[in-house]
Amino acid sequence: MEEMEVNMNAMLAAGLLLLFAMPGELYRIPPHEEVARMARFVANQCNWASMATISTHEPVQGQPFSNAFSTSDGPVGSGTGVPYMYLTTMEISVQDLKVNPQASLSMSLAQTDFCKNQGYDPQDPLCAHIIFSGSVLEINGTEATFAKKALFSRHPEMVDWPTDHNWFFAKMNITKVWVLDYFGGVKTVTPEDYFKATPYKRHH
Amino acid sequence: MEEMEVNMNAMLAAGLLLLFAMPGELYRIPPHEEVARMARFVANQCNWASMATISTHEPVQGQPFSNAFSTSDGPVGSGTGVPYMYLTTMEISVQDLKVNPQASLSMSLAQTDFCKNQGYDPQDPLCAHIIFSGSVLEINGTEATFAKKALFSRHPEMVDWPTDHNWFFAKMNITKVWVLDYFGGVKTVTPEDYFKATPYKRHH
Repeated sequence: MEEMEVNMNAMLAAGLLLLFAMPGELYRIPPHEEVARMARFVANQCNWASMATISTHEPVQGQPFSNAFSTSDGPVGSGTGVPYMYLTTMEISVQDLKVNPQASLSMSLAQTDFCKNQGYDPQDPLCAHIIFSGSVLEINGTEATFAKKALFSRHPEMVDWPTDHNWFFAKMNITKVWVLDYFGGVKTVTPEDYFKATPYKRHH
Repeated sequence: MEEMEVNMNAMLAAGLLLLFAMPGELYRIPPHEEVARMARFVANQCNWASMATISTHEPVQGQPFSNAFSTSDGPVGSGTGVPYMYLTTMEISVQDLKVNPQASLSMSLAQTDFCKNQGYDPQDPLCAHIIFSGSVLEINGTEATFAKKALFSRHPEMVDWPTDHNWFFAKMNITKVWVLDYFGGVKTVTPEDYFKATPYKRHH
């Protein structure tokens, strides 16, 4: 472990690589030009997202509404790219989704220690963030079983959430991915390219 | 300084208070029942927010859109409660605001070390978060001068952002504050009560 840290510091000092230190494993941030991989990386590193909905609540009916939700696309290092959520219709944004499932999820490396450690301001384009457009839909059957495992492994307290809240599993059905990373403005990624990409590559 | 830390650990050990350790100063999280104070506390602790807008961009025109922006209501410990931002119309969400300034900003203590340190999941109601409804408006004159100071002190790299981007100062003109903290569902706070509250009290 100590050897690993020394190795990491040496690489950081060389200024060649930006690395995330995870328990027992090192993850390398993808190169800026691999936009789909970067999107998958951010989606897998973050364990919560900000969701925008169209509000159904007085006095802001029809206005945009932002709220935070825990997410998981699977274990860190092997996520599928699908943002799963554990929701209840007692929640105000979820009530919006029942009327209009169109939503947007944003996730930023500002949520991790990465941007702080690198000295990147949250609004700096080097502090990569992604935005999903699509719909949030309830899931059942084998996909719900997978979502439960993906969520509860990264959010262990979910297992104890009050049973009378009628929790259900949901996913963001992604129609477009927006990537704000590096300079030159926003880039977009199709769902196809997004799901084809792999966020992590093994070190050799 | 060492004496301060010992004092803090003693209090934490006693389980009586939840404290934030800031350079040279200690901040106490407000009690749950002081909803307006809690909102001011979260707004002042966070240095970025997720903004929801109604998109003007194809193929998601009319749909909600979530994006991250650096914010500041002033120095930690003495904010005014007004979320200021430094924006450019080159930015996709800002282009949405030019068509419809209605927006929502959410800020969560999940953005700070607080929830992690306390072991609260980002979606746990003990991991306090707030949502502003209102409009994002350009500001000028003395308010812009104040916003510049508030923003640049907490986001020092802003001073170096490219001058050809036509940056301007903006504020969230708050019409309603939603507070998700503790159990029992969302609470709302009027702008009047929000601005009357003080986020921090001195220790005696």
